[in-house]
Amino acid sequence: MQPEPGLRGASLDAIETPALIVDLDALERNIARMAAFGRQSRMRIRPHAKTHRCPAIAVKQVAAGAVGMCAQTVGEAEALVEGGIADVLVTNQVLAPGKLARLARLAERAKVALICDSTEGVAAASRAAAEHGVELGALVEIDVGMGRCGVLPGAPARELAQRIADAPNLAFRGLQAYHGRAQHLPRHADRQGAIREAAEAVGETLGALDRAGLSAEIVGGAGTGTFRLEAAAGLWTELQPGSYVFMDREYAEIEGAAGQPEPDFEHSLFVLAGVISRSETRAVADAGLKSLSGEKGPPLLQDLAGAAVIGLSDEHSVIAPAPGSAQLRLGERVRLIPGHCDPTVNLHDWILGIRGERVEEIWPVAARGASS
Amino acid sequence: MQPEPGLRGASLDAIETPALIVDLDALERNIARMAAFGRQSRMRIRPHAKTHRCPAIAVKQVAAGAVGMCAQTVGEAEALVEGGIADVLVTNQVLAPGKLARLARLAERAKVALICDSTEGVAAASRAAAEHGVELGALVEIDVGMGRCGVLPGAPARELAQRIADAPNLAFRGLQAYHGRAQHLPRHADRQGAIREAAEAVGETLGALDRAGLSAEIVGGAGTGTFRLEAAAGLWTELQPGSYVFMDREYAEIEGAAGQPEPDFEHSLFVLAGVISRSETRAVADAGLKSLSGEKGPPLLQDLAGAAVIGLSDEHSVIAPAPGSAQLRLGERVRLIPGHCDPTVNLHDWILGIRGERVEEIWPVAARGASS
Repeated sequence: MQPEPGLRGASLDAIETPALIVDLDALERNIARMAAFGRQSRMRIRPHAKTHRCPAIAVKQVAAGAVGMCAQTVGEAEALVEGGIADVLVTNQVLAPGKLARLARLAERAKVALICDSTEGVAAASRAAAEHGVELGALVEIDVGMGRCGVLPGAPARELAQRIADAPNLAFRGLQAYHGRAQHLPRHADRQGAIREAAEAVGETLGALDRAGLSAEIVGGAGTGTFRLEAAAGLWTELQPGSYVFMDREYAEIEGAAGQPEPDFEHSLFVLAGVISRSETRAVADAGLKSLSGEKGPPLLQDLAGAAVIGLSDEHSVIAPAPGSAQLRLGERVRLIPGHCDPTVNLHDWILGIRGERVEEIWPVAARGASS
Repeated sequence: MQPEPGLRGASLDAIETPALIVDLDALERNIARMAAFGRQSRMRIRPHAKTHRCPAIAVKQVAAGAVGMCAQTVGEAEALVEGGIADVLVTNQVLAPGKLARLARLAERAKVALICDSTEGVAAASRAAAEHGVELGALVEIDVGMGRCGVLPGAPARELAQRIADAPNLAFRGLQAYHGRAQHLPRHADRQGAIREAAEAVGETLGALDRAGLSAEIVGGAGTGTFRLEAAAGLWTELQPGSYVFMDREYAEIEGAAGQPEPDFEHSLFVLAGVISRSETRAVADAGLKSLSGEKGPPLLQDLAGAAVIGLSDEHSVIAPAPGSAQLRLGERVRLIPGHCDPTVNLHDWILGIRGERVEEIWPVAARGASS
């Protein structure tokens, strides 16, 4: 882990580049807007910590009204509980005995649930909970059209729910119905179509559960790209968006789509980079693939209309200036908006929280690298 | 930083997934083959540590005959010197006074050089070295056709070299002539063409230096994709390959190109993943974009001919089995070959060194995240 940058109260100029910074005003507005959406739509908000892996931000989300947090890995759940979060849902299959033992130990300190899509998973979770004398919540994941994990809706889901309900030391808590692929469909109509199909799968499964006398306290799912649609469908009870706190290039391009209702979210997350080389046609900044996740394309440049990142290598971003604009100077700072926020944050040990021109917060990305 | 996995001597089965593993036999063969190539071609080998960010591997490379190491960032250089490497070349522009001060302090303990492509860079490095009472080596970077950093070959390079030679506390040590873009050109003939043009730029610049009475002790460059070509050109003195120790999907596809002479390198680096979900058509393993860099496409599967990773999200790889093959089982382990090794290693705090079916080494990726 890189040492904590001793910068609290320092000016932006004192930050060595590259560095991950968050605009605290924008972050707080994003958190408040999602919280307000939850109140207005009468939906519980359980934000996803896979975006930030940072308990300090989770604490802000819970303070704004979130009912708890989602985690994607046991390591994230551990960091959240250590950071004071009392209710964590691991929205992923957990099968390995070692990981289930860690989850069971966590259940001694917090309300913990996981999701299952196999009888093997249910049996293993039950065994770990029984060995530790704790109760684990368990949800059935249904494949709502994403084609990744999850059992089929309807009878197969009801059967697995019954297994959970019958398993020692497990409590059946509901359904996980997340359509990850739908989040980034660029056309609003396509996202509507995907969530309409997901709602049919959820409705069919809720009917099957009802006939079996099983009730789903949680029907969870939704991300930053579709959460309005799940809220409007009237079947989900908890929304699990993550990226809205930061936004990124990919989500911003979707947010800009016609037909997208409020709320709007702002870019709050940036990689601060410095220009280390320049020629007549280009400038080169000192942030590359080890500071910015590149699989969704190059970053955008904040406050530099018309300029573009035209190359991204391990430690460099090559920047073409806007036509007719002055070339960037050596040493000049730029703010890069990542293509994809989650894996970008996971490259950094620290988030510097900026207010105006000052460093106000220095937060450890406590679950950085915690993928097991 | 994630805690050290207490696994020395343990069997592969004890590793929690996902985890970064290296096959020590294959790693050692790769290191030996490059060292032998250096001896046979009478080239100095200065491997690039940006690939592994791991001093323990650098020590093996130096023990095999490398003259020192390359680093891409000051943080990497610090980790290398701390790990016992006595001669480090930072193959990057360094302009920030704070970073130059760190580099100057490092020069109290090791032989340290950096590269420059601006008069501002030369002046700043000279100032830092003078303030700390040390000497820093400095090379002029020339743009040999890559279109990133570097001054033009010939007179502009000679002028900057003269600046270095005249600057207090700097020693002019030579030229950096690296063609990064050429490394991954899929056709051997295209790589030949790129390095032929690079050689013309180097030759022109060496002539200009010679007429000015300046001598280049180091003419550095080359990577795993082209090092044979630079060696054959007769102008370079040091080869700086990095990826050959591990290999990855991208380099393996180039290595397979017709017309590529010996030596051959093997995949030694894998992300070990476990299957957590399966259906009739797919299996899902627990390694995604936070364990494998995705910008060069999905990983390959070792020892599973015909199977393919068809989806890669933050924590998941979706695997389609080979036609007619048995589906992967829940809990089964797979070895994923990353698309791009350098940014993949930078996601992990530890490398587990495997010999046969046992964990023999546990190495910290000491410079993980050290991009400033």
